[in-house]
Amino acid sequence: MIALAFDAYGTLFDVRSIEKECEHLLPEAGSRICALWREKQLQYSWLSALTGRYESFWALTERSLDYALATSRRTLTESQRAHLLEAYLHLTPYPDVSGALTRLGDAGLRLSVLSNGSPDMLLPVIENAGFGHLFEAVLSVDDVQTFKPSPKVYAMATSHFDCNPGDVGFVTSNAWDALGAKAFGFHVFWVNRAASPVESLGEPPDLTVANLHGVADRLAPA
Amino acid sequence: MIALAFDAYGTLFDVRSIEKECEHLLPEAGSRICALWREKQLQYSWLSALTGRYESFWALTERSLDYALATSRRTLTESQRAHLLEAYLHLTPYPDVSGALTRLGDAGLRLSVLSNGSPDMLLPVIENAGFGHLFEAVLSVDDVQTFKPSPKVYAMATSHFDCNPGDVGFVTSNAWDALGAKAFGFHVFWVNRAASPVESLGEPPDLTVANLHGVADRLAPA
Repeated sequence: MIALAFDAYGTLFDVRSIEKECEHLLPEAGSRICALWREKQLQYSWLSALTGRYESFWALTERSLDYALATSRRTLTESQRAHLLEAYLHLTPYPDVSGALTRLGDAGLRLSVLSNGSPDMLLPVIENAGFGHLFEAVLSVDDVQTFKPSPKVYAMATSHFDCNPGDVGFVTSNAWDALGAKAFGFHVFWVNRAASPVESLGEPPDLTVANLHGVADRLAPA
Repeated sequence: MIALAFDAYGTLFDVRSIEKECEHLLPEAGSRICALWREKQLQYSWLSALTGRYESFWALTERSLDYALATSRRTLTESQRAHLLEAYLHLTPYPDVSGALTRLGDAGLRLSVLSNGSPDMLLPVIENAGFGHLFEAVLSVDDVQTFKPSPKVYAMATSHFDCNPGDVGFVTSNAWDALGAKAFGFHVFWVNRAASPVESLGEPPDLTVANLHGVADRLAPA
């Protein structure tokens, strides 16, 4: 394995760190709206890819928030809505991320991010977390105008590293992303942060770990 | 408009009619498992289409049931599982369907079903409901080996009726199906049985109705 590609949302960054902001702005409904927002954001990315009507992940993040609010019969002022969206640029990284990435980089592995996020979302959240120096590339689906799990997205990593799919370790906490990456031929590490059952679709991941240190333990043992 | 294409699951047939069987076999968890089953069935169809690894909707219906059971830490015997899956062949049609389809057929419109279902699911459920004589065609995604909302699926109807997308009225209760059909260029009737908000993605449907009589009122007024 010569290189690693990391999913961003849910893998490096905790999308539930927005929940606090949601609960503050939408008392008693924040947690439910936050969960629906995330679920709808993913659904919109798949529908957008399948209909061939690409829109940036930022645009879909706005649309899915609007849907979650409408379904819950709640409203926000323009400035509250902007504040909530802005939280996507300041997501909290999981506590294991910084240490594990450093271990993997020190072991000589080439590290990248491969994400649905548009560059205007990805670059700020990586920079705000202080991770900018750890990655040699931040690959956004925006360059291929579709979304995971389309093979066109995963091919961005083999293209960047100029290698075969089996030479890339792909790290994600999203089970649907893991099965898409596996179908493409990556060596897949599934970070099962929520202790979920494995998907009943596609091939299982090559290794299931509890957090990113599990990846470092395998690839960069002390 | 010369022809109509109807979605099957949720539009003609009530997928929640399985809920009673679920609750009987899985006391106190049936309703939740049934909802997760349906949600996962759709998610698997999108992931299957996006990864280019087509499997029949029947296979995905089995897989999604297994996932819903695993997530809920519940099990079924082989014969219970088979019994529950069998319920998909005996779904209850909504009470408005028979009368509205008869009105539309009597008005001279050509009627078809356009569904994710595989033929071994669709033909029995249509026959068991006594609707076989109402449709001139039952079009299954199985012929194009992908799923809605791929334009390849909607193109089956224009191909069958040898017409333009705008000549087809597409009737669905699934909001994501409505936006896919609209992107393809159909004239879309959204049967909003659950009084849900319209999706915040894509173009809105041409007409929103409460049940199929709303479509008949527009196209086959008394």
